[in-house]
Amino acid sequence: MVHYLGVHPMRQLVQQVGLSRFLQHLVDAIDSDYRRWECFDKSARHAIHSPGGVIELMPISDGQMYCFKYVNGHPKNTTDGLLTVTAFGVLADVGTGYPLLVSELTLTTALRTAAMSVLAARHMARTSGPGCHTMALIGNGAQSEFQALAFYHLLGVRALRLFDTDPAATAKLARNLQGLALPGLRVLPCASTAEAVRGSGIVTTVTADKHNATILTPEMIEPGMHLNAVGGDCPGKTELHPDILRREDAHVVVEFEPQSRIEGEIQQMPADFGVTEFTQVLRGTVPGRAHDQAVTVFDSVGFALEDFSALRTLHALLQAHPHLATPIDLVPQMDNPKNLFGVLHGALDAPAAFAPRPRPTVALQEAPAP
Amino acid sequence: MVHYLGVHPMRQLVQQVGLSRFLQHLVDAIDSDYRRWECFDKSARHAIHSPGGVIELMPISDGQMYCFKYVNGHPKNTTDGLLTVTAFGVLADVGTGYPLLVSELTLTTALRTAAMSVLAARHMARTSGPGCHTMALIGNGAQSEFQALAFYHLLGVRALRLFDTDPAATAKLARNLQGLALPGLRVLPCASTAEAVRGSGIVTTVTADKHNATILTPEMIEPGMHLNAVGGDCPGKTELHPDILRREDAHVVVEFEPQSRIEGEIQQMPADFGVTEFTQVLRGTVPGRAHDQAVTVFDSVGFALEDFSALRTLHALLQAHPHLATPIDLVPQMDNPKNLFGVLHGALDAPAAFAPRPRPTVALQEAPAP
Repeated sequence: MVHYLGVHPMRQLVQQVGLSRFLQHLVDAIDSDYRRWECFDKSARHAIHSPGGVIELMPISDGQMYCFKYVNGHPKNTTDGLLTVTAFGVLADVGTGYPLLVSELTLTTALRTAAMSVLAARHMARTSGPGCHTMALIGNGAQSEFQALAFYHLLGVRALRLFDTDPAATAKLARNLQGLALPGLRVLPCASTAEAVRGSGIVTTVTADKHNATILTPEMIEPGMHLNAVGGDCPGKTELHPDILRREDAHVVVEFEPQSRIEGEIQQMPADFGVTEFTQVLRGTVPGRAHDQAVTVFDSVGFALEDFSALRTLHALLQAHPHLATPIDLVPQMDNPKNLFGVLHGALDAPAAFAPRPRPTVALQEAPAP
Repeated sequence: MVHYLGVHPMRQLVQQVGLSRFLQHLVDAIDSDYRRWECFDKSARHAIHSPGGVIELMPISDGQMYCFKYVNGHPKNTTDGLLTVTAFGVLADVGTGYPLLVSELTLTTALRTAAMSVLAARHMARTSGPGCHTMALIGNGAQSEFQALAFYHLLGVRALRLFDTDPAATAKLARNLQGLALPGLRVLPCASTAEAVRGSGIVTTVTADKHNATILTPEMIEPGMHLNAVGGDCPGKTELHPDILRREDAHVVVEFEPQSRIEGEIQQMPADFGVTEFTQVLRGTVPGRAHDQAVTVFDSVGFALEDFSALRTLHALLQAHPHLATPIDLVPQMDNPKNLFGVLHGALDAPAAFAPRPRPTVALQEAPAP
């Protein structure tokens, strides 16, 4: 039986589990999966580019479970009242090839990206010293609340310095955060990126423009900063000036090197530019941070492994919240698997469940939320 | 708004349109799409292999629409009462990246594969002479009825000679065809592949074993035969003895050469073995058949373009049968696209449609067929 998890029940699931606990589940799953890096059949994502954006498929498998995510990136969608990024995905059983769960992944991607950012920062950012509980948040769009809340709940960030070229976006983020009345959190809208970055121990960039932007420039960078560069995530889309990456004291960490060479900040650098894959940092093979004054860069593009972790987390949570999963007839169920035609034509051994049934009028009231 | 088309409404759609008309719609769409071959952003499919089978993603786009299919191939599934091949797919709008239709594609794949086989045979098989209305059908499993009916309805085949190593599969196919009482059709179960092939103008192989099988051997091949080789469709899975391909008078046609070199019958041949891509035959650049005595081979592996044609056909048919499409909340709908968090947290500008609603008891009766 295939289950469906739409946006509406996903919202309920997060509410019932609690946001910070939900994020922690994601951090734990991503941590555990990155530790068994070699178990995964990995590939760079498949992308089809068009003038307006990109549509990508991100498949991965650990030999037991398989998943893929569909995700688009269309920066100009917001002018039409649409999301820049939407996503959905499927978890499947490798043994049979049957899908298990079809899930919304728009909300989930925002949550897992924030969880991944926190996990990286735990291993790369300073834990003491000036500004270590202050984060600059550059780009205050759809992803920004999730970054803010993950760093507040799971990394102890207590001051957020906000900047976006669109003041309405910053106002929306500040309003959403203030509405949550989070104890001890200070939210400070700033007049420029430079002002927001000043004195912040962590700088998160999560902008959406699909071009080589220079959100952070070398003179903004202070010793000991951790840069969580989330928004540069496809060819031609970067956020950091390359001289930041070229600093002698910079340590650049990526998720999956072959994909990041194409999509990450390091697409600006020569092919032999030295980077560390995150699994090495997580497993202690390479320290995330050499010393307090080093500049650490998590060049995050989003890797399929994180969606695998998220989908298996959703699948597990739905065992405890079964009322939120809707069974769907995505795949035929039949008595004789060699008689696929029986499903279509209604031959004798087609199960009764496939017989046409009248749709009661009340069904219309029960249609999923539009 | 994303629409969902499950197995149950798909069955209804085919019944309401009529099988032969439905198949003709598919043939027309595939024909039209193969004629604009250069418009498509094409790639070989992404496959993850495991001991039990393979899971594949097949994306393609014409710059206006995008689609992908998920399809598995697990030959031993039938011993557990499961299908060897299941599939589903998504059609999306390239302009926004938003998905439009999530559809079952298990039934649809069987239908589009049969439609593709007929389209190829129209351009490659003899239209007169002995056996031209007789087809051998080797492999009588889940795909076989669809091949039989497509060739009956759309190519005038009036005699079917059946063989399968599992006599129960042949009995099932014969029973299903006899149950349809198709005027003028003779159905002849045979004792061997050689017996079934003898005197047939068209030979369709649609077997499921995942190994280099030799279903057809050189001495079975008669002058003028058209071989519709459907079952060999992944690395290590072939059906024809390579000497058949090596015949001087053989003309081998493939769908998309880079994929067929990996997956098709021609995986047995050197990389420079000459083949013709189907679009050339369709557009008359290369004749499908040089002369009456030539042996033509459609080395079919199934290409993403055919799923594109099928999904856009389903999408168009659902405009005329809107009651069969179920709206689903796969992607958030919101007033302010920069406020994704509002969907999760229920801030003021989250639309009312996302507010939790009580689930009436009757909903359980309305759940899709298990």
